[in-house]
Amino acid sequence: MNYPSALPLAHVRLTRGFLAERARLVRDVVIPYQWEALNDRVPGAEPSGCVHNFQVAAGEKPGKFYGLFWQDSDLAKWIEAASYRLATHPDAALEAELDRLIATLGKAQAADGYLNTYFQLVEPQNRWANLRDCHELYVAGHLIEAGVAHFRATGKRSLLAIVCKLADLIERTFGLGPAQIPGYCGHEEVELALVKLARATGEARYARLAAYFIDQRGREPNYLLAETRRRGEEKLPWHMYFDGLATLQAARPVRELTEPVGHAVRQMYLLAAMADLARDLGDDSLRRACATLWTSIVQRHLYLTGGVGGEPYGEKFTEPFDLPPDRAYAETCAAIGVIFFARRMMEFGLRGEYADVMERALYNNVLSGMSLDGTRFFYVNPLELIPAVAKRRYECHLVKTQRVGWFGCACCPPNLARLFASLGEYLASQLPDGLALHLYAEGELRFTAAGRDVRLAVRTDYPWTETVAIEVCPAQPAEFTLRLRVPGWCRGATTTVNGQPVAAAPVDGYLALGRTWTAGDTVNLTLPMPVERVYADPRVAPVAGRVALQRGPVVYCLEEPDHGDNLAAVALPRTAVLTARAEPGLLGGCVVIEGQGVRTRRSASLYQTEPPATVPQALRAIPYALWANRGEGEMRVWINES
Amino acid sequence: MNYPSALPLAHVRLTRGFLAERARLVRDVVIPYQWEALNDRVPGAEPSGCVHNFQVAAGEKPGKFYGLFWQDSDLAKWIEAASYRLATHPDAALEAELDRLIATLGKAQAADGYLNTYFQLVEPQNRWANLRDCHELYVAGHLIEAGVAHFRATGKRSLLAIVCKLADLIERTFGLGPAQIPGYCGHEEVELALVKLARATGEARYARLAAYFIDQRGREPNYLLAETRRRGEEKLPWHMYFDGLATLQAARPVRELTEPVGHAVRQMYLLAAMADLARDLGDDSLRRACATLWTSIVQRHLYLTGGVGGEPYGEKFTEPFDLPPDRAYAETCAAIGVIFFARRMMEFGLRGEYADVMERALYNNVLSGMSLDGTRFFYVNPLELIPAVAKRRYECHLVKTQRVGWFGCACCPPNLARLFASLGEYLASQLPDGLALHLYAEGELRFTAAGRDVRLAVRTDYPWTETVAIEVCPAQPAEFTLRLRVPGWCRGATTTVNGQPVAAAPVDGYLALGRTWTAGDTVNLTLPMPVERVYADPRVAPVAGRVALQRGPVVYCLEEPDHGDNLAAVALPRTAVLTARAEPGLLGGCVVIEGQGVRTRRSASLYQTEPPATVPQALRAIPYALWANRGEGEMRVWINES
Repeated sequence: MNYPSALPLAHVRLTRGFLAERARLVRDVVIPYQWEALNDRVPGAEPSGCVHNFQVAAGEKPGKFYGLFWQDSDLAKWIEAASYRLATHPDAALEAELDRLIATLGKAQAADGYLNTYFQLVEPQNRWANLRDCHELYVAGHLIEAGVAHFRATGKRSLLAIVCKLADLIERTFGLGPAQIPGYCGHEEVELALVKLARATGEARYARLAAYFIDQRGREPNYLLAETRRRGEEKLPWHMYFDGLATLQAARPVRELTEPVGHAVRQMYLLAAMADLARDLGDDSLRRACATLWTSIVQRHLYLTGGVGGEPYGEKFTEPFDLPPDRAYAETCAAIGVIFFARRMMEFGLRGEYADVMERALYNNVLSGMSLDGTRFFYVNPLELIPAVAKRRYECHLVKTQRVGWFGCACCPPNLARLFASLGEYLASQLPDGLALHLYAEGELRFTAAGRDVRLAVRTDYPWTETVAIEVCPAQPAEFTLRLRVPGWCRGATTTVNGQPVAAAPVDGYLALGRTWTAGDTVNLTLPMPVERVYADPRVAPVAGRVALQRGPVVYCLEEPDHGDNLAAVALPRTAVLTARAEPGLLGGCVVIEGQGVRTRRSASLYQTEPPATVPQALRAIPYALWANRGEGEMRVWINES
Repeated sequence: MNYPSALPLAHVRLTRGFLAERARLVRDVVIPYQWEALNDRVPGAEPSGCVHNFQVAAGEKPGKFYGLFWQDSDLAKWIEAASYRLATHPDAALEAELDRLIATLGKAQAADGYLNTYFQLVEPQNRWANLRDCHELYVAGHLIEAGVAHFRATGKRSLLAIVCKLADLIERTFGLGPAQIPGYCGHEEVELALVKLARATGEARYARLAAYFIDQRGREPNYLLAETRRRGEEKLPWHMYFDGLATLQAARPVRELTEPVGHAVRQMYLLAAMADLARDLGDDSLRRACATLWTSIVQRHLYLTGGVGGEPYGEKFTEPFDLPPDRAYAETCAAIGVIFFARRMMEFGLRGEYADVMERALYNNVLSGMSLDGTRFFYVNPLELIPAVAKRRYECHLVKTQRVGWFGCACCPPNLARLFASLGEYLASQLPDGLALHLYAEGELRFTAAGRDVRLAVRTDYPWTETVAIEVCPAQPAEFTLRLRVPGWCRGATTTVNGQPVAAAPVDGYLALGRTWTAGDTVNLTLPMPVERVYADPRVAPVAGRVALQRGPVVYCLEEPDHGDNLAAVALPRTAVLTARAEPGLLGGCVVIEGQGVRTRRSASLYQTEPPATVPQALRAIPYALWANRGEGEMRVWINES
């Protein structure tokens, strides 16, 4: 194996700290809660119908389909998350529950392999008839991801067999052959799922099927356009108003894209699949396309919080640098998609910028998606909010001013669950000559190097403290290289091995420590975390003249409980001293940033010619990810600078 | 007569200068062009169908109705504008054209007085059935305004008789009587029109009918809600998503409103009618409601350019201080509505703030609505534009980045035409003891004071120069008071009469010059116009930390032709010296504001921790009203301050 690859989930254990606590919440609260929700057992919550739909399709009970046509995918994402949980925390009851559920799925599956309760129960005549809108292959993709996760976690082939049968049907159905449909899905997802299936089963034909979907996308004659005409529709639906089929990344072949376009989640899932295929098939044109889009996203389309998608209407990318803070869509799922893409870019070769972006998305946009207690979620993650205004303006009508328990379109909560349940896959990469650590969190990792089993014990309070202690414990002394990521935000990192300073400098964002390691060897990494002022390129017009605060990977914001309302009136002088202070009692324990700012006083009239008067205002910024855990109020990441 | 009132149009002549040139354009270009457009004779333009519809309804030609259900109002507004033109510039050909058109209208009118070509030709069975949406009374209102204007300009009763017959039908149809409809129009307009009709005919019952519409609006049981239910509609239409029937100012009785709400044009037309009725019927509760709303609008809902309506979705007012510059709707018609309301508030008693707002709206938002050559128009008037972004974001999809020749919904161009053709009504007020001058423009005014005919000759290059010379020429010496408005933006105004300084200070914004005037008396008014920096209350969140430039009544903006793009990168140091300079060759001749600013350089990466580097940037601000006359590009009123 020449590429960096993730460790098996069972080999990574998070024990304590900021990420571990969120992972625990997902295991103990989110996954059980979602199971109740999917079974329509949460009092007061909108019914999901997910399990019900499969039971009806399986003939286990009478009834009608409930929900949206992609409803099955909510259950699939839950199975995936629950499987990851089994991998790290075996649980006989959960495993048995999954076995029963999978048996139902098996009964629900049609003889030819088809499995989609909406089309089986509601529109059997319209199978594959509206690929543009109906998410059939998207749903199949999530089922396939679930099957792979379940197989990997349990070794059982029950769900894997079901999804292979489904994938086989898809393989027979789609393609350029005479009796095949030359189409592809309006919502990418099946592509990356098929690569996972190919890896899990060793069947390269599934990767080739994914490659077909990728290659055919946007080709002339345009399949989705032909399909639209075949249905007699005169125009494309509302969400394609601005960008047409580019909303679905289907206006031209994917290798011709130079800027991200259209629906942000779809674009990110497409890029994840492209990166996977570039690697598995050695397709250099795909790799180049990924690199081009990576650069474009990072240089022109990424929110400071690691999110993407600046336009709620169509949940889309728009113009380069069009990143308004209050009208951000920055969907939780899209930031998860950024992590998927970054994780895969990393596999082309270690470069710190991939982990930097992954870390930025994780600690900010993604974590903002879930409340401190794991029971409520954001779909949209603005960088600025005035609740009364957001409730009155159309462009903010998808913004929730407080996290909510569930969504009619419940994509984000289970996506968060599967990410956090599989967080171990993002912490480190196995390399031919050792291991690379990307993210720092207290816990234990097991891997193999130079033929030896090695255990790493990491102790840290990252992202709050600057120090990471790593004990290296090979079963027997072994020569290998431990690569430690030195984050892009960090200047002046220092490292010691067994107390001896390391002189080497990081290369491409990683410090390579090659030696013969002996049990008990200890590496101490210090990552200085001064409070940083961050400025955006002035082409990000709405935040020109403003400043954001960051410490380590954590982006900060001002919130109303600490400052009163009208946060636009608050300014931070460029010369103000800013200090970081641990607040163990605040928001589950975090580090706040404090300093002396000013507040512009209200005017006597709406407009005045006198320069506005200011009064001192103590500032206390909190981590952005923790906002909206203290009631409804204003929030602001980009602060006026005076 | 105890109230200040407008002079007859024929008694006011604008001869030269900024406003006169726009009025001339309206007379010579806009009104003739619109006549061609209304007759479907403009090659390449979308057909209007207006004249055609009336000819078909009159039986003069075969054919079908063309256009929207309020299409007749475009023609009505044109007749009104053309009539104003006749009043100031008699023109036998135009008068004959109007006579022919009015004859057609007469033939089109139903025996019972009904006149609305859409309902006559398309849905005769649905007369008055959907008052909420179908604008029938709104269209009637514009016909009535046209009839009054034509009568006043020509003395002919041809159109007046038609609209009286229509108003009589409305009077019979609507009301709380047993066989009457207890309804009112979803789009206010008929109310203010009926007051004009009452004044023109001396028939107080038309004012009472207007009062019925005002009083009944929003009362329980809610007529529009009952009507909605009667049609079996389950929910209100999309544009009422946020505010329900308040979108139409119909959620509660108008006297209970404390903040402006809903569709901005409708709110302003309603207020204009309320003010008229408060005056004509001596209704103090209505006057108080007007005063409350006036204060609320001026203190919390008015754009610096004098526009209103910060939300494109539903063309609405939203929250207090929610005045984003890039997402402004600030419809040309709404700013015209501000002028209508301000002009009427002035009639309760002179107070400079009414004329201040009227002048602000006129010189900025309203004039922005028309191109320098009078052939192209803005409907939406943002205070900030990045063309590429506006073309990609939904909340900007109604923004045009360049003025256009005509609109499918062509309300604004004819509204501009009727305002500029009747501009004389806004310059001055006849008072019992003399005259008050509100706006300064070169020309001549005739009025009566102390029983004498008086002619005022005004010489000025206002708003570009600070001096206004007024020659007072009574037919014989006469004792009366000339009141000169000293604008709210002006400090240190000085006045001389025949070279002698006047010591008196203005009261409520007007300087009262009472004396026995003799032909040739000359008043010289000097209104210092330094460049002013303007700051908004910090509750106008998007422009906190920014500054705007104003000189006299003129608001300025930066434009791309003078600065390149990315105007957000441009900042004005608070200490920069700003100078005004006449530019006779620029944009028809105007005064620009110049100074030394700075430009933030583009960053090497999207985000950086170094404070951004700046380079000097010479600034040249142009009058906002003249923007977008040099090709498509960025524009920005609120400039970052450094």
